[in-house]
Amino acid sequence: MLEDSVRSLAKGKNFAALTTLLPSGHPMTQVMWVDANDEHVLINTEVGRQKFANVRRDPRVTVTVIDAANPYHYVEVRGRVVDSVTGPVAREHIDALSQKYTGAPYAVPIQTERVILHIAPDRVRANG
Amino acid sequence: MLEDSVRSLAKGKNFAALTTLLPSGHPMTQVMWVDANDEHVLINTEVGRQKFANVRRDPRVTVTVIDAANPYHYVEVRGRVVDSVTGPVAREHIDALSQKYTGAPYAVPIQTERVILHIAPDRVRANG
Repeated sequence: MLEDSVRSLAKGKNFAALTTLLPSGHPMTQVMWVDANDEHVLINTEVGRQKFANVRRDPRVTVTVIDAANPYHYVEVRGRVVDSVTGPVAREHIDALSQKYTGAPYAVPIQTERVILHIAPDRVRANG
Repeated sequence: MLEDSVRSLAKGKNFAALTTLLPSGHPMTQVMWVDANDEHVLINTEVGRQKFANVRRDPRVTVTVIDAANPYHYVEVRGRVVDSVTGPVAREHIDALSQKYTGAPYAVPIQTERVILHIAPDRVRANG
């Protein structure tokens, strides 16, 4: 089960810094929408993006979810991508995320295919 | 010279997600104060912290500076720590950073010694 400190921040209207590892091992860190279920932190991306290629090669990621109301309050989740879900579930999930963050369905053209990354925590550090 | 897009965000009252690499290669991503000079992104930490041990072993870092007024606007700076400055300069710099972010000198007890990480960009990606 995901810790409450992580789940509440990830389910709120907060942004996450998602770090994946490039082929060189250099980290790549981008600001993302974020979600959670009972077990995993969830990130929705596209299968054609660099970050998806990264996690297919090396599933180690870190997701730092930052309280939008207080940047000194954040949780750092070091974990692994344990599942990647595509298809209608991923398409519906990006609409749900868009509703959370913008109040409207997802309006950005989808270039390849949406995919939900399921991230299992190995270590969680809470700040603030 | 640092790109204007980076320097203006890093000199503003914005927070950065700093990613360093743990001995295992797993990324560590934390929310930090940030600054810049003409050439480098600057992060002030302590010599006793894990992130400093990380960059001494592997200088590759990524700093993603997020516009506090608009999280869709951020710059991702992939680079290397090319210099680490300790002593009075680092102590004065943390006071200057504290003035920028809190309006007061730095009040947190210093456990080891402050150090300024000078980060030279290899690649910059701007979003939003």
